[in-house]
Amino acid sequence: MNKDNTVKYVNIDWKPDKSLKVPLYSQIVRYFSRKIESGDWVSGQFIPPQRKLAELFEVNRSTIWEAMQELAALGLTEGNYGKGTMIVNDAWEMLIAGSTLNWQSYIDKGNFRANVDYIRQINQLEYEEDIVRLGTGELSPKLAPRDALAQILTEAMDVELELNYPPPLGLPRLQQALCRYLEDEKGIKVKPSNILITSGALQALQLISVCIVPPNSVAFIESPSYIKSLNVFQSAGTVLESIPMDENGMMPWIISKRFDVGRAILYTIPTLQNPTGNVMSTERRDEILRYCRANRIPIIEDDVMGDLWFDERPPKPIKALDDYGSVIYIGSCSKAFSPGMRIGWVVGPESVIQRLADIKMQQDYGTSTLSQQVFARCLETGVYEEHLMKVRPALKRRRDLTLRILEKHFSDIAQWNEPAGSYYIWLRLNGSPSIRRIFEAALAEKILVNPGEMYDIRENYSLRISYVYEDEDVLERALIRLAEIIRETRG
Amino acid sequence: MNKDNTVKYVNIDWKPDKSLKVPLYSQIVRYFSRKIESGDWVSGQFIPPQRKLAELFEVNRSTIWEAMQELAALGLTEGNYGKGTMIVNDAWEMLIAGSTLNWQSYIDKGNFRANVDYIRQINQLEYEEDIVRLGTGELSPKLAPRDALAQILTEAMDVELELNYPPPLGLPRLQQALCRYLEDEKGIKVKPSNILITSGALQALQLISVCIVPPNSVAFIESPSYIKSLNVFQSAGTVLESIPMDENGMMPWIISKRFDVGRAILYTIPTLQNPTGNVMSTERRDEILRYCRANRIPIIEDDVMGDLWFDERPPKPIKALDDYGSVIYIGSCSKAFSPGMRIGWVVGPESVIQRLADIKMQQDYGTSTLSQQVFARCLETGVYEEHLMKVRPALKRRRDLTLRILEKHFSDIAQWNEPAGSYYIWLRLNGSPSIRRIFEAALAEKILVNPGEMYDIRENYSLRISYVYEDEDVLERALIRLAEIIRETRG
Repeated sequence: MNKDNTVKYVNIDWKPDKSLKVPLYSQIVRYFSRKIESGDWVSGQFIPPQRKLAELFEVNRSTIWEAMQELAALGLTEGNYGKGTMIVNDAWEMLIAGSTLNWQSYIDKGNFRANVDYIRQINQLEYEEDIVRLGTGELSPKLAPRDALAQILTEAMDVELELNYPPPLGLPRLQQALCRYLEDEKGIKVKPSNILITSGALQALQLISVCIVPPNSVAFIESPSYIKSLNVFQSAGTVLESIPMDENGMMPWIISKRFDVGRAILYTIPTLQNPTGNVMSTERRDEILRYCRANRIPIIEDDVMGDLWFDERPPKPIKALDDYGSVIYIGSCSKAFSPGMRIGWVVGPESVIQRLADIKMQQDYGTSTLSQQVFARCLETGVYEEHLMKVRPALKRRRDLTLRILEKHFSDIAQWNEPAGSYYIWLRLNGSPSIRRIFEAALAEKILVNPGEMYDIRENYSLRISYVYEDEDVLERALIRLAEIIRETRG
Repeated sequence: MNKDNTVKYVNIDWKPDKSLKVPLYSQIVRYFSRKIESGDWVSGQFIPPQRKLAELFEVNRSTIWEAMQELAALGLTEGNYGKGTMIVNDAWEMLIAGSTLNWQSYIDKGNFRANVDYIRQINQLEYEEDIVRLGTGELSPKLAPRDALAQILTEAMDVELELNYPPPLGLPRLQQALCRYLEDEKGIKVKPSNILITSGALQALQLISVCIVPPNSVAFIESPSYIKSLNVFQSAGTVLESIPMDENGMMPWIISKRFDVGRAILYTIPTLQNPTGNVMSTERRDEILRYCRANRIPIIEDDVMGDLWFDERPPKPIKALDDYGSVIYIGSCSKAFSPGMRIGWVVGPESVIQRLADIKMQQDYGTSTLSQQVFARCLETGVYEEHLMKVRPALKRRRDLTLRILEKHFSDIAQWNEPAGSYYIWLRLNGSPSIRRIFEAALAEKILVNPGEMYDIRENYSLRISYVYEDEDVLERALIRLAEIIRETRG
């Protein structure tokens, strides 16, 4: 593991052919310049150290040295940046001069740098072999509803498969199934015309940020909040403002009065808040709704974790209390059922839903009808509910195990909550240790944790621990090792 | 059918209850104000004429009149706009003042007005009952691979279902299947790391417009071109510039030299161009590639129709000739197989693919793994290829039927091409008839045609006729009637 995580090495997928008459160094030069010319490799990427290349290509270091001299002479690379040899010229940079990556501008702003770095790094690392995912936002594949879905798929043959483009709001069958689910499970009474099917809750948030939130707005969010780890609101130019929580949830009276009416929204995860696991009280839900109505602030209510309570059914969503269409409500099957289905939903006033659907039509012509049909059937047949009955006790056992380990190994170094459901424990470390150093040290041992700063605007010394991905024995070993690493890092 | 298509009436889904003691007009006022307060209905929408309301509510016109007076007094509606009663106040307008819909700005610009109006209208009308879809871009559900997919779904149980989040580029299994397909069918040799799976070709275009095309660019497109009917490039601020075609395709020497290097792209559909059906010759493909390389213009090659040739396999895609990564190639299973799967792919240099994948991850965390697995299996098992064997002759028969009808009924009023495959005939009407009047007159008889101006920047007198959706007898009757309508409209 390379300590400096800003260096991005190119991916070597070739070896020189020793049976050819072409000199080895020349083959290497040809391979490198080909990769650069074709645009596969671009400026700013680094070539692995010569020692590493010699190993990969199974050649002498002198051969590598010769090849590197040649590449530099060709103007394709430059060395001595303190980080190795960097590519400085490429086909696409020339073709699309002026083109910039959306998130690049955020990286350049500096403020977001660490955050975005962490996120990109974690996204990549999660797919590495042997990595222990101790911070991740998805269920273990072992807890996936595999058998139930296989069964559904066989049965799906009995009905007509929908294989054409879906209507703008989604398949009516799924909308209807969601109407019943929302009424029975959440106390939210709406019509199909109030529901838009999206490709997951992230797309719902992205659509809302593009066509509901005005430019130069402020978004009041919980501190900490999952939304900070996404670029959706920030990339639409919205400023996030953290509002602290007490044991009943976000405290609306702390919201500054200095915002422009019509240029503010409130984003909240009242039930099983991510990352803290907090559950907002009924009174507070009512209070926030009244405050926002009085101050004309639309509420974005994120309920993707809502079905993953362990012992006690949480209070009804704010949307269930909303008589005046001030709340846009977001749900998804990703957290409790299967993220691979890519099924989410937005519930709101018809006019808002139609706007969101218009934009979605311009972006991707709708969500997979296969996924929509299968999930509709899961709701209709009770397969979804049955899966919840299985997954809730499984997650609860993992939470209890985690709390026992924390009690035994973390009592002197951290504080934490006891979440009433969902995936995470928000681990607040004592003192002010370097989270970056803990992250790197854990990574060196193949343990991936999510640093607290991903979720908070303010400096914090926390980690988001996820107990839902790894097997229980792996989880236990990794947590114990993590405690040691934290102690070692504090020195 | 309302003649003035800019009036949007609200949807009435309720009737007064005559058994109640509450006066009928008062029930109506309550229903209307509830719909407006909840944000279901918004400013700018119109209430149906009083005559129509009396009919819908089964009450006297005087009751309606009384209710309308009350609503106006409440400040919720205003009359006398020459178009009826308009809603002038609503909850969400107040909540989200300053918020504007993305496409609304285009509507307001005027230039796009007719175009956007047509598209929205057509999108809605396509889902109306009894409408004859004579311009549509999707296959008849009767030509969908329903049995084959049902079979695949049963078999899919044998393998492990992928139900977690997909990796950023898509499921490796589908990427690998596409590598083989692209090499065998298209002569394009790439690795999985050169392929990003998207939710249809539209999402691929949208991602390209957001993160590859620089601001204030020009996009050279064929005249006419399908891309004009989408908002992807325009909404990213790119100016479209039409380049005429001869029988060999787009003529690159006509491209103006007055563009900034690094601020131009070329978008082409070389094979079975939409809407003309043209097939670009091999020589022209080569010529365009050389021209664009010399002038540093990246090429976006759209090949979504490429597999739907009837008699003769078309030349290889430009991407197959591209040794230097100048071409971004787009494919999809929507046109030849099933649009509901929402599976598309982009092929390009690794660096570009990674950029696109990064942005896709910020928008929707990937494409349905269910769809990806099922389509991978269709490619692996030959089900896709078998489906092509069935669908090609079916479409050819429909094309031949259409050509016979045109010969018999349109010879004196229009000219057309003989497409070598795909869905459409580009029908160029003689003289300069009002396409808007033909569109409206056809619609009055439930025949939906796509006006040529949707696909062209210049004024034209064409219709895009699609022969793939309706049954052959319906198609024949509708075409014959259309010929009569065109004659009648010309007066």
